[in-house]
Amino acid sequence: MAKQPQKIQIIPLGGLGEIGKNMTVIRYGDDILVIDSGLAFPEDDMLGIDLVIPDITYLLENKDFVRAIVLTHGHEDHIGALPYVLKQLNVPVYGTPLTLGILEGRLRENNVAGEKLIPVKPGDQIDIGIFKVGFIRVSHSIADAVALSIKTPIGTIVHTGDFKLDQTPVDGKVTDFHKFAELGDQGVLVLLADSTNAERPGYTPSERSVGMTFDETFRTTRERIIIATFSSNVHRIQQAIDTACKYKRKVAILGRSMINVVNIALELGYLRVPEGVLIDIDEINNYPPSSIVIITTGSQGEPMSALTRMAMSDHKKVEIMPGDTVIISATPIPGNEKLVARTVDYLFRQGADVVYEATSGIHVSGHASQEELKLMHNLIRPKFFVPVHGEYRHLIKHAKLAQELGIPKENIFVTENGSVLEFTREKGCIAGKITAGKVLVDGLGVGDVGNIVLRDRRQLSQDGILVMVVTMDKQRGSILAGPDIVSRGFVYVRESEQLMDEAKEKVRQTLERCELNGVTEWASIKSNVRDVLGKFLYERTRRRPMILPIIMEV
Amino acid sequence: MAKQPQKIQIIPLGGLGEIGKNMTVIRYGDDILVIDSGLAFPEDDMLGIDLVIPDITYLLENKDFVRAIVLTHGHEDHIGALPYVLKQLNVPVYGTPLTLGILEGRLRENNVAGEKLIPVKPGDQIDIGIFKVGFIRVSHSIADAVALSIKTPIGTIVHTGDFKLDQTPVDGKVTDFHKFAELGDQGVLVLLADSTNAERPGYTPSERSVGMTFDETFRTTRERIIIATFSSNVHRIQQAIDTACKYKRKVAILGRSMINVVNIALELGYLRVPEGVLIDIDEINNYPPSSIVIITTGSQGEPMSALTRMAMSDHKKVEIMPGDTVIISATPIPGNEKLVARTVDYLFRQGADVVYEATSGIHVSGHASQEELKLMHNLIRPKFFVPVHGEYRHLIKHAKLAQELGIPKENIFVTENGSVLEFTREKGCIAGKITAGKVLVDGLGVGDVGNIVLRDRRQLSQDGILVMVVTMDKQRGSILAGPDIVSRGFVYVRESEQLMDEAKEKVRQTLERCELNGVTEWASIKSNVRDVLGKFLYERTRRRPMILPIIMEV
Repeated sequence: MAKQPQKIQIIPLGGLGEIGKNMTVIRYGDDILVIDSGLAFPEDDMLGIDLVIPDITYLLENKDFVRAIVLTHGHEDHIGALPYVLKQLNVPVYGTPLTLGILEGRLRENNVAGEKLIPVKPGDQIDIGIFKVGFIRVSHSIADAVALSIKTPIGTIVHTGDFKLDQTPVDGKVTDFHKFAELGDQGVLVLLADSTNAERPGYTPSERSVGMTFDETFRTTRERIIIATFSSNVHRIQQAIDTACKYKRKVAILGRSMINVVNIALELGYLRVPEGVLIDIDEINNYPPSSIVIITTGSQGEPMSALTRMAMSDHKKVEIMPGDTVIISATPIPGNEKLVARTVDYLFRQGADVVYEATSGIHVSGHASQEELKLMHNLIRPKFFVPVHGEYRHLIKHAKLAQELGIPKENIFVTENGSVLEFTREKGCIAGKITAGKVLVDGLGVGDVGNIVLRDRRQLSQDGILVMVVTMDKQRGSILAGPDIVSRGFVYVRESEQLMDEAKEKVRQTLERCELNGVTEWASIKSNVRDVLGKFLYERTRRRPMILPIIMEV
Repeated sequence: MAKQPQKIQIIPLGGLGEIGKNMTVIRYGDDILVIDSGLAFPEDDMLGIDLVIPDITYLLENKDFVRAIVLTHGHEDHIGALPYVLKQLNVPVYGTPLTLGILEGRLRENNVAGEKLIPVKPGDQIDIGIFKVGFIRVSHSIADAVALSIKTPIGTIVHTGDFKLDQTPVDGKVTDFHKFAELGDQGVLVLLADSTNAERPGYTPSERSVGMTFDETFRTTRERIIIATFSSNVHRIQQAIDTACKYKRKVAILGRSMINVVNIALELGYLRVPEGVLIDIDEINNYPPSSIVIITTGSQGEPMSALTRMAMSDHKKVEIMPGDTVIISATPIPGNEKLVARTVDYLFRQGADVVYEATSGIHVSGHASQEELKLMHNLIRPKFFVPVHGEYRHLIKHAKLAQELGIPKENIFVTENGSVLEFTREKGCIAGKITAGKVLVDGLGVGDVGNIVLRDRRQLSQDGILVMVVTMDKQRGSILAGPDIVSRGFVYVRESEQLMDEAKEKVRQTLERCELNGVTEWASIKSNVRDVLGKFLYERTRRRPMILPIIMEV
C-alpha cells in the first residue's frame, strides 16, 4: 500500500470565471471525491448550442479513483451535467431527497439509469473513500440545500455550495450555524465559498419577504393572479399557495417543469397544500377570476414557456384577460433581460397589470451578500480560501473581502477551471494544470461541435451563404453545366437577379481564365472562384457571405 | 386655396413600443413637419443587421408637403437615420449647433450632402410652413438638447424630446422652466413626452453628481486612470477633464467617435480645456502613470472599441497595467449587459481595478424620472397626452402617471408607430393607420433583407447547412456525378464521415426511387431529397440543418 500523501488537491472543473457548470474535484492520494456536476447555458456566440457541460477528461483518466459524486442541491447548474457524466462514470451519487428527486426526473428524460443514488439528510456524516463527508443545512432558493465538510487526514475542507443566511426561512429550517461554528473551532484548512453575490453590500433579504409582497398584491387584487417563478423554488411556490389559501383562491399549476417539481415536492413532503386547493388548469373557468391563482413557468421569458405563450396569445389553455395581474417573481438571469422585457410588454398589451423586476420586493436572491459572506468567513476561519461560483469579477471581490477579514493575500487563490490547487497543512500553491473546459451539447451530439463549426455558424448567421456549382468535363476541363449560384440568408433573391447574373458571369470568366492558364487543380480553381466572388460581392453589398464553390466532374 | 382644416394629425413613425428610431410627423392640412429621424440597434433575432431605420413611405408619398425636419438633439436614436432619409427627401434640417455638428460628421461618413442644415438656438422661434416652431432648452445626456413647441392654427403641441430636469447642469444652462410655464399658461393642446424612465420613482440625479464621484476616485488613485463613457456626453467628458486638471493630470482622448465628438465640441465651444492638458495618445508614456487620464470609447463593451481592445490586450497603443483604475461611466444599454461584464472581467484579469455599474454614483441617466415627469406635466397642463420614446411598458407607466395627475383617461393615447392621431380643439382620436415599420440596413443594402433572409440566417445560425449536389443526365434521368454532400456549421466533418456516407446513400436511394416511379420534375425530386435527408439527420443528430439540394443537368 502506498504511503499516505501529505497533501490535498482541489481541482475546479467548472464554476470559476463563469456562472454555472459547477464541479469541483477533491483528491487525496488515490481517493477522488467530486462535488456537483452542473451545466451552463450557452454564451451568445455559441450559436445553436443547447447547453454546456464540464470537460471530465481528468475524471475519466482517473476513473478507478473516483469514489462518489456528492451534490449540494438540485439546481441545473449543479446537477444538470449528470445525465452526461453518469453515462461515462458509474459511481454513487449522494444528495438530499429533493435533490435526488429532481435528478431522477432529469435522468429519466435522458434515458440514463441512476442506480446508485444515495439519499442523505442534513446533519449526516458519511465515509466516502478516505473522506468523511458532512452535509450541513444552508438556505438557498431551492429547498434541501447543503454545504459540505470534507475531513481528510491532513485537514478539513468546507465547501459552502450555493447559500444565503436566511434568518427566517419559509420552512423554519435555519442554516446550521452551530455546525459551521464547530468546524471553525476544530480548524478548517480550506474554505471554498459561493461568490455569486460578492458584489452586493449588506444582506440578501429573507425569502419570507416575498411572501409579504404576495400578500399585499393578493389583498388589493380582485381579478385573476398569475405568478411566474422558478419551478425549483419550492419555498416561493409554498408562499404563493399559502397566500392563495388565505385569500380563498384555488391554485392551478402550469408548465412542464413546474408540474414536475411540484409533484416531486408534494410527494416528498417539501410542499404542503390543503385538500381541495389545487385544481387542474382545465377547471379554472369554473371559478370566478377572483378565486384563481395560476403558478407558472416562464419567469425568464423563455420563448416556449407557458407565460410567454400566454403573453403572445399562443397558449392552448390560458388566455390573458384584461384585469389579470401577472407577478413575475424573478430577476432576469444575465442575458435574458430582453426576453423578459418583451414578455412584460406583451402582457401589458393584452391588458394585464404586470408586477415585475423594477418593482421591489417581488423577488429575492438565493445567494449570500457581503455581510453574510463575512459571517461565514468568521465562523469558519479557514487557513486557505478559494472563492468559487462566479465570474472573475465576483471571485476578485470575494477575495478582497476575505483579505479585509484578515486572511493573508498569499493564502487566497483566485484561479481558473483546471488549476490543480495543492494544500499541505502549512502551505498552498497552484501545482499544475489539467484538461478542463467547455463541452458543447447540441442535440444528441456531445462535444462534436467545436470552434470550426461555431465559426461557420457565426459567419452564416451574419451574411448567409452563396453556393456556386459547376459541372466540368474531366477530360477537357471545360464547363458542362453551370455555373449555378444559389444563396440563402444573403439577399432576397428575386430582387437581386441582376447581381446574381453578374456573379455568375464573374465565375465563368474565372473558370475560363483558369483553363487558359492551365490551372487544373480543383482546390486552386475553387480558391480563385472564392476570391473573385467574395471581392465582387463585398464591393457591391458590403457583405461577406460564406462562399462555397462545388465542382462536379463528369 | 383649400379651406383651413380644423384638425392636427400626429403620426409617430418610430419610438413607440421601442427604444430608438425616434421620428414623429406633425401634419396640418398640406403642411408636414418631421421631428427627429433616429436609428435603432438591431434586435437579437435580426442576425447580421447593422442598424434599423424608420419606414418613411408616408413621407415619400407626401414629399411635396414636407416642410422640414427639426431635431431635438444629436444622439443616434434621433439623428442616425438622416443619412438615409436625406438621400430620399431633400428638405431643410433645423437643429442646435452641436446637433448639426455631429450630424455633419455622420453625413460625411455616408457621402450625403447636407446642404440645408439650418442652425437654431434654444429660445428661437421659427416659422416653418404654417407652423411656428419654438426651441426650448432642456437637460439631457448630451449638450444642446431642446424640446419643441409647435404652434398651429388650432392649438399648440409640445414635444419634450429626450429630457431630464437637471437643477445643477454642468454648463449652468438650466432647463427653460419659464418657457414651459408660459406655454402652459397660454394653453397646450397636446403634449408628447419622453417615457424612457417612466418606471423610475423619484428624481434622476444631476450630471454634476458624477463629477463628485470622479473627484473621489481621482483623489485616492496614484496610478493611471482610464474613463470610458459615451462619446456624445460632452458634459461628462468636461467633468473628467476638469477633474484631471484639478489633480494635475494630462488627458489623452481615445477611440474614433470620442475623438470626433471632442473635436466638434472644442471647435463649437461646448468643451473648454486649458492649454497643454490634452496630449496625444502616443505621448502617454512620456509621463508617470500618476499624471495620466485616458478618456475612451467602449463603455458598452463593443467588441471593436478601444476599451474592449485594451481589455483583450489587443490595442495597438495602450496596454492595461496592474494598478490602472478603469472607470466605466455608463450603464449597459439593454442587451449589452454581457458584453460589458466580459470587458470588466478581462480588465480585472489584466490586474486593473475597475469601477463599474454595481458601484453607484459613476453614471446618471439622461432621462426624467417620475417626479420630473410630473413637474413637466404640471407645467404644461396639456389637454391631450401622448407618451412617446419607450417600450410599451414605459408608455403604459407614463400614461398611468398622467392619469394620476388628472388628465382624463380618454385624453391619453398609448399607441403605436403608424397610428394617425387626430386632434381638434375639443377631441382626439386614432383616425387611421399608415405604413410604418422597421427598415433593416445591412451593409449597403437598405431594406433588402426581409423576413425570408432573416429566417434563413436564423436556421443557418442554429444548425448550419447541408448542400447536396448531383449531376443528372437530362435525357435518361440517370446520375452522372454525385451525389456529393458538403456541410457547413452542422457537424465537424472529419469526425462524421460515416454519417455523411450514410446520408449520400440515402440520397442515392431516393433518386433511384424517383427514377423508378417516373418522378421527373426537379422540384419534386428536390423536395423528396430534402424530406428524406432531413428526417435521417434529425433522427441521428436531433439537429435540423438547412438542406439545399442542387441538381445539375447535362
